[in-house]
Amino acid sequence: MSKGLWYTETFSDGLQVGLKVERSLFAGQSAFQKVEIFETARFGRALAIDGLFMTSERDEAHYHELLVQPAMCTSPCIHNVLIIGGGDGGSAREVLSHPEVQRCVMVEIDGMVVDASKKYLPQIGPAWNDPRLELRIEDGIKYVGEASDQSFDVVLLDGSDPVGPAEGLFNGSFYKEVARILKPDGVFALQSESPMLFEKVFFDIQALLRKTFAEVHPYFRSVPIYGTGEWSWTYASQSTHPRSLVSSRVEHIEGGSDIYNMDIHHGVFALPQAIKRRLAEL
Amino acid sequence: MSKGLWYTETFSDGLQVGLKVERSLFAGQSAFQKVEIFETARFGRALAIDGLFMTSERDEAHYHELLVQPAMCTSPCIHNVLIIGGGDGGSAREVLSHPEVQRCVMVEIDGMVVDASKKYLPQIGPAWNDPRLELRIEDGIKYVGEASDQSFDVVLLDGSDPVGPAEGLFNGSFYKEVARILKPDGVFALQSESPMLFEKVFFDIQALLRKTFAEVHPYFRSVPIYGTGEWSWTYASQSTHPRSLVSSRVEHIEGGSDIYNMDIHHGVFALPQAIKRRLAEL
Repeated sequence: MSKGLWYTETFSDGLQVGLKVERSLFAGQSAFQKVEIFETARFGRALAIDGLFMTSERDEAHYHELLVQPAMCTSPCIHNVLIIGGGDGGSAREVLSHPEVQRCVMVEIDGMVVDASKKYLPQIGPAWNDPRLELRIEDGIKYVGEASDQSFDVVLLDGSDPVGPAEGLFNGSFYKEVARILKPDGVFALQSESPMLFEKVFFDIQALLRKTFAEVHPYFRSVPIYGTGEWSWTYASQSTHPRSLVSSRVEHIEGGSDIYNMDIHHGVFALPQAIKRRLAEL
Repeated sequence: MSKGLWYTETFSDGLQVGLKVERSLFAGQSAFQKVEIFETARFGRALAIDGLFMTSERDEAHYHELLVQPAMCTSPCIHNVLIIGGGDGGSAREVLSHPEVQRCVMVEIDGMVVDASKKYLPQIGPAWNDPRLELRIEDGIKYVGEASDQSFDVVLLDGSDPVGPAEGLFNGSFYKEVARILKPDGVFALQSESPMLFEKVFFDIQALLRKTFAEVHPYFRSVPIYGTGEWSWTYASQSTHPRSLVSSRVEHIEGGSDIYNMDIHHGVFALPQAIKRRLAEL
């Protein structure tokens, strides 16, 4: 909802985050959701979906590097990568920054997000013209259901919150399908919400992933425009562990990253004590 | 500023954070600042100073454990500890949770903060009746200037932002005085602001501390009610390094902490890549 020059996001948990907005650049209603892009006062251009900030030029690295690089820097092979969602292009850019990647399939359900991002967020998505990118505007759940067994080295779920079109991405049967299309030593990484604002969703995701994957490791860092700052992603694999860093890839990424490096990689997997206790009870 | 039932904090950087408020419990104007305590909808009771949230019952561990425990769990001796500021009592509680502490001097300039916190924030400050606590309502800068050389093992600066009464706590001559009253292997820790919202202050603090201390290590974690989530504290010492953990102390703290443990200790000192580059240029 807009309040004069402030675009304010209200969480059920009695918390609001607002960004000062200079002007609207795009507003559209797709078959799935309301898509808006703003020029903000201090965070560059920002994308909002159904009234929730997804990303801004100023803080997008905090989200995209952390979703993508822990998986990309540990999976033994990264030739074939699948991104589900990620319509702003930031995750594709992070994936394609690795020269080893041969093919990056990006399945985004909402073409309006892609079109608006291409036009108004060019800083976030310089990957659109990379010949290794295979962009598909279709339902990610359907795509995963029809993909061949063991056809991907890395699967990244860059979805919005578990309401609206992303709801079906937060459940056990979808995670089983992801495991099926991954190589046995492949890695799945997903954004898994704020452990404070979406506590139940966060722990449900952990419990569901543990039913399917042998290695399940949530990790934590701030995303400045997301409420509470403390955000989580989760790393899941049958046999690969987050500690198994491929150092040449990390060194390559460190040359251009804002956040990610070897120390950050290890640091983000530290579990806060209260979350460690809860996970031990799952 | 109050907006109906929302208490909203506006940063110069085009960002707002609001907490939903059920009712006001206390509002007073001291000689130094405006002091308010609210019952919020979902963050428990919260303290605001001059319109800025200082802490809430729900998220205070994120701030207090991180300010206090890295210093307390690494300083070779922790018999004598000085807290400057910290009027809500949370830092004193963290210090006094260590049985090794013999004396904790807390110098808070504003008696109104202490009185209101004792009355309305008892969950945060159970340390008020500990006989090891020596509470002094006076100017921390003056106290430090008059304290004897090498009289403290640990000094913690739990001040608000570098405006108002806390302004004199953010400068090189104050840091020199802190170094003088610390044991040679003692540790100084301070909150050093958001590296995103107060970028200049953050880097100025690093540069000033490096002029006085041989070991200067900023560390980062989210404080949910603070804007951008990504907050910083800085660890400084002449000879003690953050890696020199006293494991028995960490194990003791882990029994009751919400956030802090050995992995978190090591993880928070990881420098984001853009900050690492800037620090290398200082």
